Amino acid sequence: MNFVSIIMGSKSDYEIMKNCAETLEKFDVKYEMIVSSAHRSPERTKNYVKEAEEKGAVAFIAAAGMAAHLAGALAATTTKPVIGVPMKGGAMDGMDAMLSTVQMPSGMPVATVALGKAGAVNAAYLAMQILAITDKELAVKLKEDRLVKSKAVETDSATIEVRL
Amino acid sequence: MNFVSIIMGSKSDYEIMKNCAETLEKFDVKYEMIVSSAHRSPERTKNYVKEAEEKGAVAFIAAAGMAAHLAGALAATTTKPVIGVPMKGGAMDGMDAMLSTVQMPSGMPVATVALGKAGAVNAAYLAMQILAITDKELAVKLKEDRLVKSKAVETDSATIEVRL
Amino acid sequence: MNFVSIIMGSKSDYEIMKNCAETLEKFDVKYEMIVSSAHRSPERTKNYVKEAEEKGAVAFIAAAGMAAHLAGALAATTTKPVIGVPMKGGAMDGMDAMLSTVQMPSGMPVATVALGKAGAVNAAYLAMQILAITDKELAVKLKEDRLVKSKAVETDSATIEVRL
Amino acid sequence: MNFVSIIMGSKSDYEIMKNCAETLEKFDVKYEMIVSSAHRSPERTKNYVKEAEEKGAVAFIAAAGMAAHLAGALAATTTKPVIGVPMKGGAMDGMDAMLSTVQMPSGMPVATVALGKAGAVNAAYLAMQILAITDKELAVKLKEDRLVKSKAVETDSATIEVRL
Amino acid sequence: MNFVSIIMGSKSDYEIMKNCAETLEKFDVKYEMIVSSAHRSPERTKNYVKEAEEKGAVAFIAAAGMAAHLAGALAATTTKPVIGVPMKGGAMDGMDAMLSTVQMPSGMPVATVALGKAGAVNAAYLAMQILAITDKELAVKLKEDRLVKSKAVETDSATIEVRL
Amino acid sequence: MNFVSIIMGSKSDYEIMKNCAETLEKFDVKYEMIVSSAHRSPERTKNYVKEAEEKGAVAFIAAAGMAAHLAGALAATTTKPVIGVPMKGGAMDGMDAMLSTVQMPSGMPVATVALGKAGAVNAAYLAMQILAITDKELAVKLKEDRLVKSKAVETDSATIEVRL
Amino acid sequence: MNFVSIIMGSKSDYEIMKNCAETLEKFDVKYEMIVSSAHRSPERTKNYVKEAEEKGAVAFIAAAGMAAHLAGALAATTTKPVIGVPMKGGAMDGMDAMLSTVQMPSGMPVATVALGKAGAVNAAYLAMQILAITDKELAVKLKEDRLVKSKAVETDSATIEVRL
Amino acid sequence: MNFVSIIMGSKSDYEIMKNCAETLEKFDVKYEMIVSSAHRSPERTKNYVKEAEEKGAVAFIAAAGMAAHLAGALAATTTKPVIGVPMKGGAMDGMDAMLSTVQMPSGMPVATVALGKAGAVNAAYLAMQILAITDKELAVKLKEDRLVKSKAVETDSATIEVRL
Repeated sequence: MNFVSIIMGSKSDYEIMKNCAETLEKFDVKYEMIVSSAHRSPERTKNYVKEAEEKGAVAFIAAAGMAAHLAGALAATTTKPVIGVPMKGGAMDGMDAMLSTVQMPSGMPVATVALGKAGAVNAAYLAMQILAITDKELAVKLKEDRLVKSKAVETDSATIEVRL
Repeated sequence: MNFVSIIMGSKSDYEIMKNCAETLEKFDVKYEMIVSSAHRSPERTKNYVKEAEEKGAVAFIAAAGMAAHLAGALAATTTKPVIGVPMKGGAMDGMDAMLSTVQMPSGMPVATVALGKAGAVNAAYLAMQILAITDKELAVKLKEDRLVKSKAVETDSATIEVRL
Repeated sequence: MNFVSIIMGSKSDYEIMKNCAETLEKFDVKYEMIVSSAHRSPERTKNYVKEAEEKGAVAFIAAAGMAAHLAGALAATTTKPVIGVPMKGGAMDGMDAMLSTVQMPSGMPVATVALGKAGAVNAAYLAMQILAITDKELAVKLKEDRLVKSKAVETDSATIEVRL
Repeated sequence: MNFVSIIMGSKSDYEIMKNCAETLEKFDVKYEMIVSSAHRSPERTKNYVKEAEEKGAVAFIAAAGMAAHLAGALAATTTKPVIGVPMKGGAMDGMDAMLSTVQMPSGMPVATVALGKAGAVNAAYLAMQILAITDKELAVKLKEDRLVKSKAVETDSATIEVRL
Repeated sequence: MNFVSIIMGSKSDYEIMKNCAETLEKFDVKYEMIVSSAHRSPERTKNYVKEAEEKGAVAFIAAAGMAAHLAGALAATTTKPVIGVPMKGGAMDGMDAMLSTVQMPSGMPVATVALGKAGAVNAAYLAMQILAITDKELAVKLKEDRLVKSKAVETDSATIEVRL
Repeated sequence: MNFVSIIMGSKSDYEIMKNCAETLEKFDVKYEMIVSSAHRSPERTKNYVKEAEEKGAVAFIAAAGMAAHLAGALAATTTKPVIGVPMKGGAMDGMDAMLSTVQMPSGMPVATVALGKAGAVNAAYLAMQILAITDKELAVKLKEDRLVKSKAVETDSATIEVRL
Repeated sequence: MNFVSIIMGSKSDYEIMKNCAETLEKFDVKYEMIVSSAHRSPERTKNYVKEAEEKGAVAFIAAAGMAAHLAGALAATTTKPVIGVPMKGGAMDGMDAMLSTVQMPSGMPVATVALGKAGAVNAAYLAMQILAITDKELAVKLKEDRLVKSKAVETDSATIEVRL
Repeated sequence: MNFVSIIMGSKSDYEIMKNCAETLEKFDVKYEMIVSSAHRSPERTKNYVKEAEEKGAVAFIAAAGMAAHLAGALAATTTKPVIGVPMKGGAMDGMDAMLSTVQMPSGMPVATVALGKAGAVNAAYLAMQILAITDKELAVKLKEDRLVKSKAVETDSATIEVRL
């Protein structure tokens, strides 16, 4: 069973991260989602990651704010790809979470995506792009999604377009 | 043939990005590496990505500085995972390249890693983590590498350690 | 037919960019306005720019937020002047869009204006200043506008002025 | 006589701004170049701009560092396009000059380009793109330059390229 | 007649700058207050400064936002002390106005105070400190004000104080 | 009598700092709390610190915003540990208070915690960790609190958890 | 046996952190010092902290750069005070390490000190201030050190002093 | 006896601040200059300020780096104008010292000038502008200096000028 695992550092991240789950659902991609903190529940985090990896987790998505160490803690525990979603709300409009997530040392990558909601959605897409390497059906869906998005641009444009 | 494709926006990025190539070589991972710019050679970039994808590229690594659009241009062309390495040297100690790489809109992720050399190495590791999902031999090597790194910490420590 | 072409990366930029269109209208300057994304609809963007250039577009105005690549994508496609308007709403109060727009590499300029609404208006003024090089009537209007603005300062001042 | 006018706020900006002049020379574009400060010689700056405008200046390039007011001072004096080049060396790696140049109020645009040397070159290109609207020969040269740049990418790439 | 001159770049700064005027009034210090812009009304600004200086202005207070050039423009026109109040509302929470005001070149100081309302009040205090060098009565009032402020701390504290 | 001393620079910091007091109360830790400013009441601040130290203050918590000098002023007066809580509300989303608090010179440490409410709570925890070195009962409570927090993560998770 | 434990994330931090050790030595304070990484050797880090705590570690000092998670990892493992020293060398002149260290969530404080060498020295002072709560001899030394430092200011001043 | 008082927080600031002293000397303005720290020698600082004020100090110049509290400490002690010169070398290229100096609370202004050497010179000019209010001879010299500076721009320009 191949699936994506979503871990958020605090329940308060759920409002943003449900956009991640919904994106996966739209593509019928299986996922697990839990709250677990790098600091408040480090053992739970480590144990969950190991169990999820054995169960078939192909990629991990970690969402955290402020001194966002969760994605790094995952990266230290698994050699599966770890995707980090920095949350806004701390210092400098989320710059604390961004730098705490992306600036990982050599050999311990975290695949960091945009701050907040766009990042939550993009984490799902990035996880699906990884799954799609072996899941041809999903690969096709992702290509179709691009066409849908491209068409949506035209539809959006039509409502305000001015042409000479 | 599964391989990793490295694209850098300027030949001047080579000094940093050779660390990416060398990391892949250390793990016997096949890769291609070219210079191509999002702005100076957009057609070459697009054509290369399409050809590489057909030829078996599993993930793309894009390195660029300043208003670093290269990873985004790749992300717009392929649905394979795109890893972005922001280069230093522009404004605010590389913050321009970092934000230009990571802040992608919904549905168009770039997996951003650290600025500069650490990012070059981590892009290779992230690409290998993705390859390792289907390459069990590589997966084993990545786990062994963790043990080597962990041991290296002890060896490093021994040279300066003070114990009571 | 000489005209200005306005492209915004997302329909959500319209609330800001209508200030650009209204400014051009106030001076009876012809313009086109569409939504097209550097990432979601790169072909549409490229094709539109080429068609608009043939049709008589004298300058392009590109508005985008976050990792704002749209102006850069235009600059890579045309040698007409490209004006970039960074949108707020991403990281560091719009700093992501600002740096992604202005920090272009050698030989590929984007004429960047202020963040948000002031930038939307200034993009229109900058485009008109370019048009006015050959349109003497517009040049006169722009000079008159300066007098109007200068007088408006006095009128504004009168409402709060304290003189000894 | 159509020409480009380059003004730098301090002689110390010359090392960077000579890249601007050399770029114009490479395309046989006529230019004037002087040192004049917004703060130390405001009258000289204003008078020069007015004379240059009468003499045929089509666009102005203003280079300044720190609280870079020069481009804004020009923008207040002329309705010709004013291009601002922020210099590094002040606070936050040039962020002071960048924000002082680009964040102009409604109706007073400064076409801001990248920090430092890339900006010096891009200011020349932007000025030439404006001149090329009426100078068809220059327009052709700018298009040819793009091909040269695109070819240079391939030549650069050849020295480090790895293909499978 | 010794007085303080307050100039704001836009009528929209009045909500903040009235705190400056009210502070001066509280100490019975004479002031003038006008709107005049460095960019929209440079001649008015220059002429006003010269007239005010002749009339007895001892110090100038300039309030502006975004690429805040007003204080610098005053500093270029007079050798009286110029106090700059950066307004919020542009980029990075007012950092654009702050850096545009404070980072003046050698020989052209602007006495910069805090962003926004605290700065508006402090500009008045700084101007009064300058006036008080020759106005002994005002000097006494400023010292008394310190006692009042110090007492107010105690009164404030009493409402929440916890003592063992 | 061992206790913690909380000093805030302004009564307006109370809304945030009451979270600090409440945290200490939850653990039955004695504290004093006053308003005193580094700038408006420097003598009161200095005298209070000396008296509190004699009375048994084991650690000081200083909360201040903007150019937050209060913690530094305490650090200059006592050799007891001083904990600094930077308040938001100034420039760059609290970066002014953060840097003014943490960047102390050699030999004069301020133990800086997070911006705003999280910092207010963490200042209490840090003070208690210091007290717990000699207060074994408090040490046990702090360890128990960790278990409670760890359990709370599980309870929080249960409300949104998705498991395969 | 009471002692201070210094952990640095990489051997490359030693050049800075030896200033921490030397400061402790100057005051005859016992310390341990090891290299251990939050990411490369998480188990070693956790095990060491637990052993050190049992052995008598009163406070921990953690030095790390970039996405500096080491102090946070310690804070999650022990309820002893954890002091974080952010190292320079990553993004924005050390801002990445600073924000990753200080912005800890509620209930998990890290006592953050200045960037780089000043922070290394201050971490030692802060640890000693904590030890001095029960070590009266050390408390006296710390007070004497203040007098020495205060005298040093006068000596330093004498070399450049100008008095009327 | 009217004079300017220069205080620097550390002897290491002398290399920059001697530019301040030299500027005052060039105009034959009397000054005192000492090293005194807000944190290491707070009593010396306070006592010096009081003595200097009685002796005739008309304005104080305070230079400090990092969490630069010195100017604020002076502002809390005197009602004479206090000019703050932020030193580079801490975090974010001097942003720590800048924000710690300028962001003073209501009623406690510090007249902040540019970072580093330009600020050292400008502090001297600002102090002289304040002195010149009553010293007519100095006022004339300051006006003459402007002419000299304005002429120097022309001389500088001549070495690189290009005219058509």
